[in-house]
Amino acid sequence: MSQYPSELLALIAHLKKLPGVGRKTAERFAFTILEWKEDEVQKFAHQMQTIQEKIHPCDRCGCLKDTPECSFCNGGLRDASLLCIVSSARDVYAIEETKAFKGLYHVIGGLLSPLDGRNIEREQVERLEKRFDEQPIQEVVIALDSTLEGDATALFLKQKLEKVGVKATRLAFGLPMGSSLDFVDYGTLEKAFTGRQLF
Amino acid sequence: MSQYPSELLALIAHLKKLPGVGRKTAERFAFTILEWKEDEVQKFAHQMQTIQEKIHPCDRCGCLKDTPECSFCNGGLRDASLLCIVSSARDVYAIEETKAFKGLYHVIGGLLSPLDGRNIEREQVERLEKRFDEQPIQEVVIALDSTLEGDATALFLKQKLEKVGVKATRLAFGLPMGSSLDFVDYGTLEKAFTGRQLF
Repeated sequence: MSQYPSELLALIAHLKKLPGVGRKTAERFAFTILEWKEDEVQKFAHQMQTIQEKIHPCDRCGCLKDTPECSFCNGGLRDASLLCIVSSARDVYAIEETKAFKGLYHVIGGLLSPLDGRNIEREQVERLEKRFDEQPIQEVVIALDSTLEGDATALFLKQKLEKVGVKATRLAFGLPMGSSLDFVDYGTLEKAFTGRQLF
Repeated sequence: MSQYPSELLALIAHLKKLPGVGRKTAERFAFTILEWKEDEVQKFAHQMQTIQEKIHPCDRCGCLKDTPECSFCNGGLRDASLLCIVSSARDVYAIEETKAFKGLYHVIGGLLSPLDGRNIEREQVERLEKRFDEQPIQEVVIALDSTLEGDATALFLKQKLEKVGVKATRLAFGLPMGSSLDFVDYGTLEKAFTGRQLF
């Protein structure tokens, strides 16, 4: 709708860049923001303006930090012989929530995509290799998406790790909790069968 | 996930206030914003910061304006004998898009809700009544949602308009374009029958 005032159109254009937000949703967001109290909008905009200054990825592990020291790298109580590779810093928080892992993390920041011809960047590989020099890593847990890109990246990492001589493991595939066999796709069911465990 | 850095949590809390955005979506938005280029985030935040300064509702009709003069009230070519009542400024743009209406608008800014005990504010009613003094209005088109609140508000407005002696019309109810009878609810089908027109 080109009749909107131009400033409103500009805000809508910005909102449309958020993931999964189309024109209609962006318009709805913009009109909501127009109706908010002034100080609420100011606080929101200021938060956005300063977020990148205040939060940085850790140079070593890639996790987010709002202090000079990374709370994951310098957690003290973490097991430095275990390293978990994830694709984005966001995944770290999901894994932390499970309390199933007490080792260190490494964010590789993007997956390899054979179809798009996208590779893991050279500097990312070097950053990872550097960690093996610095730390007594014995096992690497590859915690990537179970998609084509995730699989390709896992395979790539496995080959790298074999060269370094480190044990590589991968997250288990199987039935999601609370699922019914009727609704599970055949691929998952097959993985659940081949990966069956002693009860 | 309480482990996020506090600044990130604050941004997520703001994003969650957008309509239809829950915790997961807000987290996704926040991580996307973190990954954006710095100047893109700055422009977005600045746009948000200044939007309320730059865009105001018109004192008379309630439509949005980014110039001192309202482009709807002072459009020149608009028919001042027709007035369309809508609930929010956003509806105006949707109606303009249809090109079916060339009169003036009046935004009442919220619907009456019998269940929540919410009434149309006294000042809104006065703002509307003032327009009848200023303009030679002959017909008022009530263009409100076809919901309980929309119906209640339409009835309330109809009574007010009868007192002033102005003809009130309402948007037609019927089948939405492209719909199949199988999937239309009975209420809509009934309205479509009772409102049938010569072909």
